[in-house]
Parts: sequence; structure tokens; C-alpha cells
Amino acid sequence: MSLFDEDLRKLKSKILEMGGLVETAIRDSVRALVDRNDNLAYEVIKKDHIINRIDVEIDEDAIKLIARMQPKGIDLRFITTAMKITSDLERMGDICVNIAERSLEINREPILKPYIDIPRMRELAQGMTRDALDAFMNKDQKLATDVIMRDDEVDDLKYGIVEELLSIMMLDPTKVSRGMKITFVAQSLERIADHATNIAEFAIYLVVGKIIRHTTYTSDKV
Amino acid sequence: MSLFDEDLRKLKSKILEMGGLVETAIRDSVRALVDRNDNLAYEVIKKDHIINRIDVEIDEDAIKLIARMQPKGIDLRFITTAMKITSDLERMGDICVNIAERSLEINREPILKPYIDIPRMRELAQGMTRDALDAFMNKDQKLATDVIMRDDEVDDLKYGIVEELLSIMMLDPTKVSRGMKITFVAQSLERIADHATNIAEFAIYLVVGKIIRHTTYTSDKV
Repeated sequence: MSLFDEDLRKLKSKILEMGGLVETAIRDSVRALVDRNDNLAYEVIKKDHIINRIDVEIDEDAIKLIARMQPKGIDLRFITTAMKITSDLERMGDICVNIAERSLEINREPILKPYIDIPRMRELAQGMTRDALDAFMNKDQKLATDVIMRDDEVDDLKYGIVEELLSIMMLDPTKVSRGMKITFVAQSLERIADHATNIAEFAIYLVVGKIIRHTTYTSDKV
Repeated sequence: MSLFDEDLRKLKSKILEMGGLVETAIRDSVRALVDRNDNLAYEVIKKDHIINRIDVEIDEDAIKLIARMQPKGIDLRFITTAMKITSDLERMGDICVNIAERSLEINREPILKPYIDIPRMRELAQGMTRDALDAFMNKDQKLATDVIMRDDEVDDLKYGIVEELLSIMMLDPTKVSRGMKITFVAQSLERIADHATNIAEFAIYLVVGKIIRHTTYTSDKV
């Protein structure tokens, strides 16, 4: 294995490590809410600095790798794209911290209603994150396309949740504060899925060599 | 002027163009709400594709520049950082589209209350965006630090707005739907300011040569 291949292998392994941590954060921040488990929320908040540290490391490793090895073509594209993807992953970690903080607040109050669609959104967002990274690592265009398609389902779930919460809040003003917080969680999960979609778009970019972001093919939601 | 300098100059000019378009989108999306001017909202939605196109162009130009010129040191760092910054700018454009879409909905309904803090948030977020990009372009650490400090003011304004809207909604359930939408706008402006903060952190990174992101010095809010 050449020195370049070895450095590239290390970079990939760090990205996968970061992805794994983000997946855990997505799972645990929502579980903190659904299972009313404060400890899980504290874990997510406490561990976010590890995600941040790896984000910084990947950027520094990537710049050194480019400067030293002067890669071209697909290798250069992989490395610069990796630097962009880690920004998405880092942001996803921050969003999980927000969900965890909100979960702690919501858990102080009586349950508004059983959570059914929020866990489903979580499952989808987490799966999209895993598959988007796999698609990027394995240059798997089919899987990346599949991730992008799943984003619509997440959006639909979010609209349903927001509409339902709106009705609950309008019927009983004492539920407004809790309803707003759960709405925030649903919006946060939608944003996590959007970041996964970004990563999937970058994966396709890597394969087809042109940037498909912002084409009609993909959705452009925040 | 060398070929490299010329290419770098073009790259910088595209970043500034993109920044200018994002600034306009921030201004007009909020003006659409405050002045109840639907045309401005449609303009923001219509023009977002230009921001997206420049985002793609900058990435492609940057990769070509690295492959051809094999820059090192500060130049390489500037180019890779520019690629990350454009992701923030592109996302800010998307958030403005969301604000514009929400403004169109809110404008269909009676005014909930006069907008006072939302325009102030807009002013701050727009100024932070401009100054963060200036700081990046001119490697101005002082200005970048100043941008980061201003983010707290934006957060405070948002908390105030959300609290006030919460009270309004709890007193009058017919105001819940509008209150939620205006809350969404305030949260969106907070996120725009967060992206400007990201850009300012990248500007400092460029100057001091190490990554200050996620240190105690900076805030890590979503």
C-alpha cells in the first residue's frame, strides 16, 4: 500500500467513525425523548465535542494530504468532497444536541401524546445518514439515489406531525409550549435528513463527476 | 499577474457575488414579511437557483485550480476553505427561500403584531454575513471575532421573540398557526446568523492557521 493509499484509508476511517457517532447521536437524542430518558440526552450533549474534534482533524488531514500528495482526478475530488461532507455531519451532531436539550425540557412535563411518527422520522433519518455515507465511501450511485428519494417521506411525516400538533395546541392552550417543542424536534429531524440528502448528492457527484446538486433531480429543502 | 493569481481573483469575485446575492435574499425575504410584499418573496424564491449555480461553479473552479496549480500553504487553505464557506452560503439561500415561503403564508392572514425584533434580527444577520465574508476575503481576524460576538445578540432576540409569541398563542388559540410560522422565521434568522458565524470562524482559521471551530471561544449553536 502506498503512502497515499494509507493516508486515504485513515481519512476514510475517520469519516466512518464520525458517521457512526452522528448515527448514535440521532438515535439517542430521539430515544431520550421517546423513552423519557434524560441520561441519553446528557450523553448526546457530552459526546458532541468528539464529533467536533474529528471534524477538525479530517479538515487538517485532508489539507495536508492534498499539499503533500498533490492528488488529481477522483482522489482529489474524494478528498475535497470529504471536507464538505464533514461539515454536514458536524452540523447534524449540533442538531442532535438541540434535540437532546429540547428532550430534557419536554421530559419535565406530562406526555402530550404517544410518539409514533417521531420515532419513524428518526429511523428514516438515521438510515439515510448511514446509507448516504456508505454510498459516498463505495461510490454507489444507486444507493445515493435511493437516499435522496427517501427524503420526501421524511418531509411528509414532518408535515403530518406539525399539522397534528397544531390542532392539539389550538384545542388546548396549555399544550402550546409542549407542542412547539415537539414541532422543533420534528423540524430538526427533517434537517438531519436534508443533510443526509446533501451527502448522498455529493456521493453521486463523486461517481458521475459532475455536480447534481440543485438539479431538478434532487430536492432543495432546508 | 500570474495565471494562478488571476484564477484566484476570479474565485474570490464569485464568492463575493454569491455573498451579495445571499445578503439580498436575507433582506428581501424578511422585507416580504414585514412590508407584506409578496413580490419580494417571489423574487427570493425565483433567484435562489442563481445562488445554487454559483455554488456549483465555485466548487468546480476550486478543484480545477488545485489540480492545475497545486497550491500549498495559505493559498491551498484559502481555496479549500472557500469550498466549505460556499456550502454555508448556499444553505443560507435555502433558508431565505423558506422564510419567503412562510412570509407568503403569513401575509394571507391578519397581522398578529407589529414586527420589531424580526427586522432587528434580519439587520444583524445580514450585517454578520457581509462582515464574515469581508473578514474571510481580507483575512481580518478582528472583524471575524466581532461577527462571532454578535451571534449572542441574535440568539437573545430569538429567545425574546419565541417567548412573546408563546404568550400570545396561549392567550388566543386562533393565533397559534400564525405564531408558529413567525417562530419559524425567527429560528430561520438565528440559523442564518449561525452560518455567518461559521464563515467568521473559517476566516480566523485562515489567519491563525489553526482551526478555532468548536473551541470555548466560539458558540456552537445550530
